[in-house]
Amino acid sequence: MSEERGERRGPGRVREVTSLANPLIKDIRALAMKKYRDQTRSFIAEGLKLVVDALDAGWTIRTLVFAKSALGNVAVERAAARTVAAGGTVLEVNEKILAAITRRDNPQMVVGVFEQRFRQLADVRPSAGEVWVALDRVRDPGNLGTIMRTVDAVGASGVMLVGDCTDPFSMETVRATMGSVFSVPLARCDAEAFTRWRAKLDARLVGTHLKGSVDYRTVDYAKGPVILLMGNEQQGLPEPLARACDTLVRIPQAGRADSLNLAVATGVMLYEIRRHALPLDGRGEA
Amino acid sequence: MSEERGERRGPGRVREVTSLANPLIKDIRALAMKKYRDQTRSFIAEGLKLVVDALDAGWTIRTLVFAKSALGNVAVERAAARTVAAGGTVLEVNEKILAAITRRDNPQMVVGVFEQRFRQLADVRPSAGEVWVALDRVRDPGNLGTIMRTVDAVGASGVMLVGDCTDPFSMETVRATMGSVFSVPLARCDAEAFTRWRAKLDARLVGTHLKGSVDYRTVDYAKGPVILLMGNEQQGLPEPLARACDTLVRIPQAGRADSLNLAVATGVMLYEIRRHALPLDGRGEA
Repeated sequence: MSEERGERRGPGRVREVTSLANPLIKDIRALAMKKYRDQTRSFIAEGLKLVVDALDAGWTIRTLVFAKSALGNVAVERAAARTVAAGGTVLEVNEKILAAITRRDNPQMVVGVFEQRFRQLADVRPSAGEVWVALDRVRDPGNLGTIMRTVDAVGASGVMLVGDCTDPFSMETVRATMGSVFSVPLARCDAEAFTRWRAKLDARLVGTHLKGSVDYRTVDYAKGPVILLMGNEQQGLPEPLARACDTLVRIPQAGRADSLNLAVATGVMLYEIRRHALPLDGRGEA
Repeated sequence: MSEERGERRGPGRVREVTSLANPLIKDIRALAMKKYRDQTRSFIAEGLKLVVDALDAGWTIRTLVFAKSALGNVAVERAAARTVAAGGTVLEVNEKILAAITRRDNPQMVVGVFEQRFRQLADVRPSAGEVWVALDRVRDPGNLGTIMRTVDAVGASGVMLVGDCTDPFSMETVRATMGSVFSVPLARCDAEAFTRWRAKLDARLVGTHLKGSVDYRTVDYAKGPVILLMGNEQQGLPEPLARACDTLVRIPQAGRADSLNLAVATGVMLYEIRRHALPLDGRGEA
């Protein structure tokens, strides 16, 4: 590693790296690919605020990368110290390297590599008042990230990825969550496991369907836990999943059928489901 | 133009083009840049269905580009004939050229170049029951396109772009509209012109604001026309626009403040504003 000066600073492992050829940087850049995220069970989050929020919330950081220009910034130095204390690596780099890692022209000064987290399906047991969103084969990273953000906003409990979904830990999804990736629990399973899991629950499974006969505004969502099941962007819910639902609701549309974006439809549903639980003057139910 | 065989087919101007260096193709590819879209007041829409819908709706087509492999497809040939009848040009190309125009690996077989349309501000005079969405400096093409799609879905009347907004005719925005670019009227103005326009109207101007004191669910939106004003993604509504509103509403959020994506927040607002007008069993109000 001739490109790297192994200089130490402060109490822990802080390295200055100046070359894109450095193997540590290569490993981080490889996280742009799902294959490497899966292998290492890690992902990239951008921005000091996000990294600090994640540390505060108890997420495990593996590497903190920060721009030379951030040296002396108290919050950055504190995040670096926490990373070292947690056994992680801290890299001081130039802007070119940050731009390469984030694939952006104007990168954030700070980037963190964190461990992925998925909750075991068996451990997801919603109780009364809770809402989970189950997404059937969601394809678009922006949609998934935006839905996680909305789940956070309405105080729902988590997102279940059913079948072959886009990766919740891709950089694009993480960006679209605007930080909610660190506050919204995720679980994943195939459609069969989902229906088995759901059969054991005393929860109402509500699916949205173009052929749904129930107006989404007429259901009493306040009773017991609710699982909101949303179908894939192109095809909607497949028959077996639609059949598994207790209620198939429809969001009325004035224009052409099926004209709502998935994240918008999920947002409209979530605000209806949580209507009773979101007063303006409070922070919602406990 | 040695690269081009000027072969004619059928009743009109159909040219086979095989080279990316062809000036007609260069002109179309230049429409990826806002500068050229503005200069020529045109834009690209992808997909046979979209092109046919646009022709049906009376939009002016300048060029129809289709893949060699679509030759013999009745719908494509009919669209080609309509293009020629309208004085437009029809280009038969290979997949490489379509991929270059659309910047996609698996391009649509058909692409249309259409004239842009903006409605004059003075001609936007909403009457009772109508809803317009005004977007203050919207930045993200995906958000704008998704909002136009939602405006279509709820049967609202149009979108007004206030101040420096992302281009509604960029390929990314047009894609996100999923065809609604051809059914949702657009107008544009700066913030001052907007407030002057609004002052002359007997319409309720409703803004969403993090400091709004009114629950968005408690307003009677059924009386008279409504203009829904949504602030920029990063900053929300600036003071002068906020002051111009009759009502500043807030969407309650259980999590961190300001945690809703703009397109989702607009969707939630629009479904609330149109709540009375969207029965499940009908197509909404006339």
